[in-house]
Amino acid sequence: MTMNPVRPEKLHIYDTTLRDGAQQAGMHLSLDDKLAIALQADAMGVDFIEGGWPGANPIDTEFYARAPELGLRTAKLVAFGSTRRAGSRASEDPLLEALCTAGTDYVCIVAKAHDVHVTQALRTTLDENLAMVADSVRFLVGHGKRVLVDAEHYFDGFRTNPAYALEVVRTAAEAGAETVVLCDTNGGMLPHWMGDIISATSSIGVELGVHCHNDSGCALANSLAAMDAGVTHIQGTINGYGERTGNTDLTTLIADLQLKYEWPVVTPEQLGNMTSVSRTVAEIANQPVSARQPYVGESAFAHKAGLHASALKVNNDLYQHIDPTAVGNDMHMLISDMAGRANIQIKGEQLGMDLSDRDLAGQVASLVKQREAHGYAYEAADASFELLVRDTCGELNDRPFSMTSWRVFIEQRGSSEDDAYTEATVKLEAQGSPQIFVGEGNGPVNALDQALRRALRPAYPQVRDYELTDYRVRILDEDRGTDATVRVQIGTTWQHDTWTTVGVGANIIEASWEALSDAYLFGLLKGFGADE
Amino acid sequence: MTMNPVRPEKLHIYDTTLRDGAQQAGMHLSLDDKLAIALQADAMGVDFIEGGWPGANPIDTEFYARAPELGLRTAKLVAFGSTRRAGSRASEDPLLEALCTAGTDYVCIVAKAHDVHVTQALRTTLDENLAMVADSVRFLVGHGKRVLVDAEHYFDGFRTNPAYALEVVRTAAEAGAETVVLCDTNGGMLPHWMGDIISATSSIGVELGVHCHNDSGCALANSLAAMDAGVTHIQGTINGYGERTGNTDLTTLIADLQLKYEWPVVTPEQLGNMTSVSRTVAEIANQPVSARQPYVGESAFAHKAGLHASALKVNNDLYQHIDPTAVGNDMHMLISDMAGRANIQIKGEQLGMDLSDRDLAGQVASLVKQREAHGYAYEAADASFELLVRDTCGELNDRPFSMTSWRVFIEQRGSSEDDAYTEATVKLEAQGSPQIFVGEGNGPVNALDQALRRALRPAYPQVRDYELTDYRVRILDEDRGTDATVRVQIGTTWQHDTWTTVGVGANIIEASWEALSDAYLFGLLKGFGADE
Repeated sequence: MTMNPVRPEKLHIYDTTLRDGAQQAGMHLSLDDKLAIALQADAMGVDFIEGGWPGANPIDTEFYARAPELGLRTAKLVAFGSTRRAGSRASEDPLLEALCTAGTDYVCIVAKAHDVHVTQALRTTLDENLAMVADSVRFLVGHGKRVLVDAEHYFDGFRTNPAYALEVVRTAAEAGAETVVLCDTNGGMLPHWMGDIISATSSIGVELGVHCHNDSGCALANSLAAMDAGVTHIQGTINGYGERTGNTDLTTLIADLQLKYEWPVVTPEQLGNMTSVSRTVAEIANQPVSARQPYVGESAFAHKAGLHASALKVNNDLYQHIDPTAVGNDMHMLISDMAGRANIQIKGEQLGMDLSDRDLAGQVASLVKQREAHGYAYEAADASFELLVRDTCGELNDRPFSMTSWRVFIEQRGSSEDDAYTEATVKLEAQGSPQIFVGEGNGPVNALDQALRRALRPAYPQVRDYELTDYRVRILDEDRGTDATVRVQIGTTWQHDTWTTVGVGANIIEASWEALSDAYLFGLLKGFGADE
Repeated sequence: MTMNPVRPEKLHIYDTTLRDGAQQAGMHLSLDDKLAIALQADAMGVDFIEGGWPGANPIDTEFYARAPELGLRTAKLVAFGSTRRAGSRASEDPLLEALCTAGTDYVCIVAKAHDVHVTQALRTTLDENLAMVADSVRFLVGHGKRVLVDAEHYFDGFRTNPAYALEVVRTAAEAGAETVVLCDTNGGMLPHWMGDIISATSSIGVELGVHCHNDSGCALANSLAAMDAGVTHIQGTINGYGERTGNTDLTTLIADLQLKYEWPVVTPEQLGNMTSVSRTVAEIANQPVSARQPYVGESAFAHKAGLHASALKVNNDLYQHIDPTAVGNDMHMLISDMAGRANIQIKGEQLGMDLSDRDLAGQVASLVKQREAHGYAYEAADASFELLVRDTCGELNDRPFSMTSWRVFIEQRGSSEDDAYTEATVKLEAQGSPQIFVGEGNGPVNALDQALRRALRPAYPQVRDYELTDYRVRILDEDRGTDATVRVQIGTTWQHDTWTTVGVGANIIEASWEALSDAYLFGLLKGFGADE
């Protein structure tokens, strides 16, 4: 009763965050974003990472050129493309050529498997479509590639014309495809519809995969149903990103397989990374996180009801389906919002600060809590956290510099085609002498940075080598329009050191200024470049 | 193959948004909120609405007093409570008394069904718990109530001690409960675990219901699996609100049943209300809406990839699992860097613009591509897209206003604890007369907005009612530090219309200004508020 199936000999988790996930409305990934997300997927323990469509757009082409530097630990990179065009030759298809030169061992090509899509969307014959599949797979295999085929609209196609859908899979298999991935491209399937179609397809004998979308709210359940019916390769995306309603969320899938099916699909350490991976990828992709996301969401282990709270004190397991630390998440009582003393002490240890004193740790914890309620986030901003601790210890009474005032002026005259004029003034005191300098920039924060650098340089010439390498802005309550609270994060680099500071406020310039001046303060306190 | 089960004679949809949904982190419903949400649930066609726990808190007690004025059309109201306390009498239990006086025909009480919860959380004996169930049900039936029993932690309980879990259901049934609702309270179940447990429980002969949480990402699929196994009553919440990861989302459930199972669980009109109900409830509950929500989400029928766009023009059904108008949603074409002329033409059609001219569509497509290379994104910014098209057609030669200049000044003196002073000046010409106004704000964009509003008001008093409801900032090349390109998106609302504009530049204020002035330009061109 309530038994799990036996784990198949092989089971592959295939991440398509960078290709299908990037189709999500509002998602725009730069090359650096893509490289950073690939590292996260690798850290989570997926078997394959689909990086994009080389040859179809310059970022994706460049991604494959740069990917070898990533040094992925376990994931294999896959280049995505399509079958050759109708009425042409595989050997003359520039996109198939680009797949050959992308430098991956694996390639995945999408093929039409639904007869109506062949005739109406592709506008070719059913036979030519089969020839396109066969030719393209053979061409890639002939170039030494291990080939996967995404059978697009497979399930809808099977329901319309099962013989043809099966023929597409058979053709791909006979041409040398290792895996044929059955795609519910429109996402309209239900779990109880999956089994029969998968069983009928299994008879072909090629390894089957599944690729689900969430349009019926069942992407994950459909993937599990397909797996229960014999599929051994599952595609999805981190956080379920994707076109329309998104793809199967790999974070939930992996946790379900590992903790519910009790199949070791990743290592316990990789599973323990999952909450961090989910949130880091959301940060990189600039997507809001869903507090309700299973396993990794901020509320996934949050308890509110009075009904439960007293029982929770007796036995955590009574009201939690798993131990939240297994996926790197925390149990969360909603009365208090975050960071207890223990967390603060662990964090301090990581940063090489002694927070073993209970009172000090408690004081910092309550400050962090207070400031987080205002919108600060210290998870990534280690430098601001360290400044907060040092300040609490009284170590910042004697600062390298102190601000007197700053101002910014931005003006645009005439045609909006011309750039606005931006100027900033910074007045401060450093090593006992007052400094006032003006700076120009192509934006207010850039101008403030120029002025601040100039004002610091007489006392601290080393700031010349501090480089602002990262600037992020997050509007915290977007629905308050231009009156919303803004969180700014600035990354600064000196030689091999990089540190991050945070600023918060209703005024984006003020928040930026806070992060900016703290960035210099931190570098100077650390003595970066002081000996040169 | 892929057959649906036969529709059971009765099938009840039970809405617990107001009780279990309200447990969601950050949700605080007033009495008026609750009354308004009950009307929405009724409009969506649910059979039962659980309004809260009368006697346990004053808002819920008052809710039942006021509910009769709502004039619910089809839904029956249910009062929620619990079995009597251990070691007391049902007739002396004030909360059971409150259920009797709440004025509903139906009541639902929660009972423990998991042996460890009885002994550890309730701290009573297994026999006393059975007595509590029997007594409470009999008491309520004796007072003329139709009784439902929520068997809490039923599935986990069944897996630990099936005999006891079954005994709780049998006891409730024998005491006169009409329906026993099997609750996956911790939300940890998987679909393939449901069938056997439901089947074993069916032998008792009472009507069974199911209540699922989404902790394994399977609330909906578990509900469907339970239904496939014979359950005829399904509980859930609008938009899946609820503690931790939430409950079964009734919007998806109803749409799946109606459109995929092809069971008429609501009327076509009620189904057509669904998108509106979902968004209205989100508004009332002050919860962010998920663009990716199945059926009703803003992106649920959004198409981005160029791969699909040309085919969409041929046949909508090729790339949509259902007709979006069935649930009151729209197809949505995302303009993106993958867009060709076909996308542009479909988008134009949706916005009521004639882009059938191939040259014009081609010209717009190439402009969009060019601007997207600079960082613009039109997929959400329909208003900016429309302005671009109208400009290309020469329709903007005579604008409602033209800018002369603007400037912003921000200053901070003394302690950084004080707010910075922010002032903006806007000079423009509207209906032939020059206007110059100054505005203050808590940030530069807010100040610019104040000044721009004041400058437009003499000519266009209607701008007073335009509200900036959304402000988003995305740094496009974050690794260029404060020198990066910034994309700003502004959402503006007038009455029931909301439109989105976009601005891009190295200068965040300039980018914001572009989105801001286009927001007013668009509203004025559309004549929003002009007749008032």
